[in-house]
Amino acid sequence: MEQTITEKILARAAGQEKVSPGQIIEAQVDLVMIHDHQGPLTLLEFARLPVKKVWDPEKIVIVLDHRTPSQTPQAAKNHRALRDFARSQEIKYFYDIGEGICHDLLVENGHIVPGMVLVATDSHTITAGALGAFATGVGSSEMASIFARGKLWFRVPESVEIQLEGELPPGVYGKDVALYLLKTVKAGGLDYKALEFRGKGVKNLSLDSRLTLCNMALEMGAKNAIFEPDEITLDYLRNRTAKKFSVIKSDPGACYTCTIKIHLNTLEPLIAEPHSPDNVRPAQEIEKENIKVDQAVIGTCTGGRYEDLNVAAYILKGKKIAPGVRLLVVPATRSLWLKASKEGLLDIFIEAGAIVSYPCCGPCGAYGMGALAPGETCITTGSRNFIARLGSPEGKIYLANTATVAASALVGKIVDPRSYL
Amino acid sequence: MEQTITEKILARAAGQEKVSPGQIIEAQVDLVMIHDHQGPLTLLEFARLPVKKVWDPEKIVIVLDHRTPSQTPQAAKNHRALRDFARSQEIKYFYDIGEGICHDLLVENGHIVPGMVLVATDSHTITAGALGAFATGVGSSEMASIFARGKLWFRVPESVEIQLEGELPPGVYGKDVALYLLKTVKAGGLDYKALEFRGKGVKNLSLDSRLTLCNMALEMGAKNAIFEPDEITLDYLRNRTAKKFSVIKSDPGACYTCTIKIHLNTLEPLIAEPHSPDNVRPAQEIEKENIKVDQAVIGTCTGGRYEDLNVAAYILKGKKIAPGVRLLVVPATRSLWLKASKEGLLDIFIEAGAIVSYPCCGPCGAYGMGALAPGETCITTGSRNFIARLGSPEGKIYLANTATVAASALVGKIVDPRSYL
Repeated sequence: MEQTITEKILARAAGQEKVSPGQIIEAQVDLVMIHDHQGPLTLLEFARLPVKKVWDPEKIVIVLDHRTPSQTPQAAKNHRALRDFARSQEIKYFYDIGEGICHDLLVENGHIVPGMVLVATDSHTITAGALGAFATGVGSSEMASIFARGKLWFRVPESVEIQLEGELPPGVYGKDVALYLLKTVKAGGLDYKALEFRGKGVKNLSLDSRLTLCNMALEMGAKNAIFEPDEITLDYLRNRTAKKFSVIKSDPGACYTCTIKIHLNTLEPLIAEPHSPDNVRPAQEIEKENIKVDQAVIGTCTGGRYEDLNVAAYILKGKKIAPGVRLLVVPATRSLWLKASKEGLLDIFIEAGAIVSYPCCGPCGAYGMGALAPGETCITTGSRNFIARLGSPEGKIYLANTATVAASALVGKIVDPRSYL
Repeated sequence: MEQTITEKILARAAGQEKVSPGQIIEAQVDLVMIHDHQGPLTLLEFARLPVKKVWDPEKIVIVLDHRTPSQTPQAAKNHRALRDFARSQEIKYFYDIGEGICHDLLVENGHIVPGMVLVATDSHTITAGALGAFATGVGSSEMASIFARGKLWFRVPESVEIQLEGELPPGVYGKDVALYLLKTVKAGGLDYKALEFRGKGVKNLSLDSRLTLCNMALEMGAKNAIFEPDEITLDYLRNRTAKKFSVIKSDPGACYTCTIKIHLNTLEPLIAEPHSPDNVRPAQEIEKENIKVDQAVIGTCTGGRYEDLNVAAYILKGKKIAPGVRLLVVPATRSLWLKASKEGLLDIFIEAGAIVSYPCCGPCGAYGMGALAPGETCITTGSRNFIARLGSPEGKIYLANTATVAASALVGKIVDPRSYL
């Protein structure tokens, strides 16, 4: 029986020749990650188990990225608990505060390779599928049992094929593909499906755009999202990882429960309006409504990568953002911060009037920064615009690609970015 | 009758030929400042007054620097209230979030000139005395009445002369002069005095060191601290301000209630131990006690200036801070951030493993960053180590000069910086 890439990865991890959608399996996990937002709960649960040592300290990554740098005494306590745990358990990969956003660190530092199974206590774990891995989020207490046994049960998901054709026009990015899909299938419309991005258009998508696309598949409800490894993937992994891996691809003729075809050339910049990521309309339509922007955010695991900083700097260079707008720019990792600094991108942001933050998750959920007052409007490269996500339930959050966010900060109202490129 | 510089400034502001210590006067203020921590209270009080317009919108500066960038919905509301007030009152100088720490912005942007009277709703307003101004903090509701009338009553303080002789040895800074004084006179020991720094040693103190010294005079209880303008002051002001001013100096033979003489050459790096700024011992003594550092802070209005970043970068260049230490570096203003960035200082910090923040007051009082867990130790360039100042009442805060903080971050324990210079 032909299998999809997701089925092949899960079969290998379960020690079986093949698996079928709906089947319950127990699979070895290749890597797990916890961070300071959910991780402390995992430690509490793990302490209640009879085992004293984690199953494999080389397969656990711990990242402090949410309440950093130690926003409250409780955050500082949680950070210390995770540091102490990492030390006592001899966890090999510990990223202290300031290193960056967990999902980006995993990818950037070669922890993720094609064909692996990654689970982590964060829904955006799904991002890593862009490198051809099976990656999904789990609960904190479930993670305690994985810490003990290195295994987890899965119901094998049905696969859905997203066929990408053509090439994105200027001003349109992976984020817009995700918003187009959300507009089409609606939030939760692909619940527990394995989303596989395929087709001739894939080669035209940068790795950064692929990461953003996988990241936002979560809002459709996907169990995982995945790209088959190609030249772009292998180029990215070269010199980045010492791990061995094999390139797994879906069999021709593998079974998908449905196929959605997207002609990339036909897409335009899209925006998700409050209060759901699937409440999507074209930027050029929304521009006509003269929506004043109070806060603009370039960052988070959905939009704080090199591609993002680069287009934002292109738009902002030599200009000043509109008075009364606060623009937060949050590079995803320390090494990206440094690269952007050395290339002069950060200076461009500062000269434009932006606030450049250390790498952290902050403005995704108003963790210590980026809160809205009642009635304020934020346009963000983030992935979620749920009510009260940034503090006030009367705040309004718009999701957009990075060019749209940068151009809107410049103008002081939400605009279609294509006139600013 | 001969007068001190403080008396001369107050006499001019009160429209009198001379004033005497103890006398109650009503003085015109030349400039006032409020920020987002205390400012919102001023707005509430001002709204209760019969006047609708401030006395002079060109003499009010508003800065958002404490709870930035919008750490909570309440902070965002406060920021909006201040923005709205600035707009409706046509306040000329409004610094939005990300611009920097108020005291540094006032000095850096030419708002402060010798001989002026500055009052602001922050105790560290006293910092501006380094430029030869009379500068002091006032309460928020008092400020509402100043907004209405442009005047305030003062009891003319007695002046105390601090005679500085000689030159600071390497590794010793303005901060150590302040800590030496605190060790000598104790916290509150110079309550309501006008501290005047004089003597042949003054010319050997950088402007940044003078600002730090005036800043910490507050911990001695001083009403104001002041340096007579000299070449260093005038050099600093050149091209920085269009304001007219005259150079006011104390009369020879002016009356001081006491004189404290400090031989700068004899000073060494000092540290204030928990929980008071006057609990001071030499760094070399404390080094022997092997005190582990969890957090190190280079920033705040006491120690986030160019001189600070420069010495820290010198110590950290090409090195890595100790594992388990979090080092926060917070340049005081946007333009300093940019200067440090262009000179490569920020890259040095990032490469050393530090967290570089946008300019803000954060780690002075754990406003959104820099909180301690119980039992944790912080060494900081800040001015206050009161119990629970950084969150946990069981946290320990040590105050030191910037070289000491940088070297301690490197080693992971509190050290005398002189071996690292």
